Amino acid sequence: MSTSIGFVGVGRMGGNMARRLKDQGHNICAVYDRASGLAAELANELGATHARTLAEVTAQADIIVTVVTNDDAQLAIFANDDDSLLMGAQGRVFINCATITPATHVEIERRTHAVGAASLEACMASSIPQARQGTLYLMCGGDRTVFDRVRPVLDDLSSDLRYIGPAGSAAQVKALVNMVMNINTAALAEGLGLGQALGLDLDMLREVFAQTGANSQVLKTDGADMQARDHECYFSGAHAAKDSTIAWVLGAQAGLNLPLSAATKLQYDRLVALGLGDQDKSAVAELTFKGRHA
Amino acid sequence: MSTSIGFVGVGRMGGNMARRLKDQGHNICAVYDRASGLAAELANELGATHARTLAEVTAQADIIVTVVTNDDAQLAIFANDDDSLLMGAQGRVFINCATITPATHVEIERRTHAVGAASLEACMASSIPQARQGTLYLMCGGDRTVFDRVRPVLDDLSSDLRYIGPAGSAAQVKALVNMVMNINTAALAEGLGLGQALGLDLDMLREVFAQTGANSQVLKTDGADMQARDHECYFSGAHAAKDSTIAWVLGAQAGLNLPLSAATKLQYDRLVALGLGDQDKSAVAELTFKGRHA
Repeated sequence: MSTSIGFVGVGRMGGNMARRLKDQGHNICAVYDRASGLAAELANELGATHARTLAEVTAQADIIVTVVTNDDAQLAIFANDDDSLLMGAQGRVFINCATITPATHVEIERRTHAVGAASLEACMASSIPQARQGTLYLMCGGDRTVFDRVRPVLDDLSSDLRYIGPAGSAAQVKALVNMVMNINTAALAEGLGLGQALGLDLDMLREVFAQTGANSQVLKTDGADMQARDHECYFSGAHAAKDSTIAWVLGAQAGLNLPLSAATKLQYDRLVALGLGDQDKSAVAELTFKGRHA
Repeated sequence: MSTSIGFVGVGRMGGNMARRLKDQGHNICAVYDRASGLAAELANELGATHARTLAEVTAQADIIVTVVTNDDAQLAIFANDDDSLLMGAQGRVFINCATITPATHVEIERRTHAVGAASLEACMASSIPQARQGTLYLMCGGDRTVFDRVRPVLDDLSSDLRYIGPAGSAAQVKALVNMVMNINTAALAEGLGLGQALGLDLDMLREVFAQTGANSQVLKTDGADMQARDHECYFSGAHAAKDSTIAWVLGAQAGLNLPLSAATKLQYDRLVALGLGDQDKSAVAELTFKGRHA
């Protein structure tokens, strides 16, 4: 019998990853989401069970992919209470895709080992379209043997797959990627905002940026959107705020002075406080363009 | 008779630009530098006059290229005092390459017009090797007719030549390029510094950055140098401090809140205060790597 795969957390990322695996011929047996309607819809679409409890997912699946929003949610589904993925989990492998603190991945590994299960962190440095197309950039942390065991699933989700090291290490790299990306994004918002205030042609300015030392990946992904105020969400401001905080805390724990990281965290916190947290991270430009927000 | 070209400021940028134009068959007639030894050496190398006064350059040259360090120096060579480029300047064209405030370019244009001369700002978004090879990225501001008139000289200095708009506008774009570049550089230094503190393999980390949303031009130019502490100067920390201040002041004048620009200015100011201002801007990593500087 083929390996069966369950999903916990089937928002736009998790849902698209499940669709992609189904397309590739995997057996998606059960899906669960706190938002029951989401899970019901996807279960119907994929011909899977709509699991009403976490334990039901563990009971049905060999491999469980979790895509939750933050540390609290990640810890909650692996808690020792009424309903938990840990119930009857012996022999299961959990692939945890949330962007969370490295320490939480270490803790989840400890909890899964305690019940005879295994876990792997699979940190994604890509967004919703890549999830659907199976072209995620995946960085994995945990035991190498666990990585090798679930590799067929990981391969079908990703175009770039990388084993980083023990539990927590992939999350560290992911935190650093997002830290630098978020700073570069906030920097670009300042450059374009000031350019507009000076009366410069922003199409020209972005072209010059692209040809000089100001060039960056976020210029390609977010530059035009900042100009056009098109903040349809691929990577939310709230996520950027969360990730900036993870990096900032790691820096503080390491005793480092990281002033740009701190300034960026405050910008995304401000974006969230202004009620713009569910827009794309490009919305940070709303804070730096004259007359957009106070 | 061919157009004769004079140079004022023949440090590593100006000197290499003069060498390049000489190679391309231009007539370099006179060179001047406050550091008289520098000018004497280059004059000897290029078979030019070592001008002892600014007025001597104006007397000998049709086109005068100035490459000075800052606003004060730029204004000083166009002052109305004992010795000035303005003396007998009727019909001359000045090409001013320093990275200075937009307002200074406007003022220089006013002063040159008052004596029947013309000026053009030619802002360089490249460094010393590109100056020598004639592959500068040049952004020009001033009258379009002046730009067209000196175009043969500009073409031989650059691989990318761009007319931006009236006096001051190219300096604005240059300030924005450097602002974003300097922020991205300081961001990269934080990412790599934190990566090292976490015990990550920095070769791996730079590779991941290059493949993800953390990618940037400065990752290519400065990443390995930050890791190796190789801060041989292409673009000095002191210049980054100056440019960051220009951008930060422009932002303040425009009434914008640019916290990353401010944080970056403070980092480069700190670099200078620690006596590292003459190292490359990559030395900002000395502030973010554990145990390098307090």
